[in-house]
Amino acid sequence: MQVKKIEELDRISVDEFRDAEKIPLIVVLDNVRSLNNIGSVFRTSDAFRVEAVYLCGITATPPHADIHKTALGAEYSVRWAYFEKTEDAIRKLHDDHYTVYALEQTKGSVMLDAMRLEPRSGYALVLGNEVKGVSQSVVDLCDACVEIPQHGTKHSLNVSIAGGIAIWNFFLQIKGSAEL
Amino acid sequence: MQVKKIEELDRISVDEFRDAEKIPLIVVLDNVRSLNNIGSVFRTSDAFRVEAVYLCGITATPPHADIHKTALGAEYSVRWAYFEKTEDAIRKLHDDHYTVYALEQTKGSVMLDAMRLEPRSGYALVLGNEVKGVSQSVVDLCDACVEIPQHGTKHSLNVSIAGGIAIWNFFLQIKGSAEL
Repeated sequence: MQVKKIEELDRISVDEFRDAEKIPLIVVLDNVRSLNNIGSVFRTSDAFRVEAVYLCGITATPPHADIHKTALGAEYSVRWAYFEKTEDAIRKLHDDHYTVYALEQTKGSVMLDAMRLEPRSGYALVLGNEVKGVSQSVVDLCDACVEIPQHGTKHSLNVSIAGGIAIWNFFLQIKGSAEL
Repeated sequence: MQVKKIEELDRISVDEFRDAEKIPLIVVLDNVRSLNNIGSVFRTSDAFRVEAVYLCGITATPPHADIHKTALGAEYSVRWAYFEKTEDAIRKLHDDHYTVYALEQTKGSVMLDAMRLEPRSGYALVLGNEVKGVSQSVVDLCDACVEIPQHGTKHSLNVSIAGGIAIWNFFLQIKGSAEL
């Protein structure tokens, strides 16, 4: 099979992206430390037409050369906002009628492959710090927790990988492809 | 909901991992340049009990300090082998009765959300170089190509993110959770 050339991929421009319909999903970064991870979340959010990324606490904001290295320009297509406290971002999301999920291993979390999104006006997905995960005070404000089942030696996946897997699943369910 | 402590996650040790049942999936890295990406693929492969990672061409091999930074030790749990030519790895996989998929945007590739794995003795998933993707000569040897549908401005996802999403989907289908 012939590998497609870049011009055969029919990608949209940054201006077209801004005007394009997005999925009603906002990704929240709760004190994500690594600029690589932040950039990577932008690139994934661009691919799945995520509505916005909320950068919170110590999470760095664009423009930044090291975010650009992994975002590769997606930090200019995907809308973002900064909040000093992640808790304030969650409160704003609730005011705006978003249902907020933390991606975290908690007592009572739903496994990602068993998650069935109820029809809602909008969804948010909170990704946590590389070492501490999503803060307990943030989890306490979320509507539910979702967890990726893991069977290896390490206690967690890299946050940008876990985020990628979860964003893909939210994308499929929001688009109605519930039959993956 | 209470965030789980590390000791509540019941992870297995490296020795236990080696003896544990794996999913019959081998991940092949076709000339992956970034040590971050290589390490990240090890970490993801550990989480989903991937059978082995085949490192090919310019793909660096453990032990390596920069692979360790993202693998965090998963380079010691997950079995790996090195091949100078990716084509030789694919030939060995075919000799061993694996069905080989390239993760690549090609004419005639199957979208990941439409992929239905036929029952086979084993599967392999080839991930390509950060710039060039999976080489055409490698694609030519594969049994099928699978593609992650993308709707943004960038022509591709980061290889470790795309790999994470695809490995998760292979894991679910191999484990029989076809109803995600």
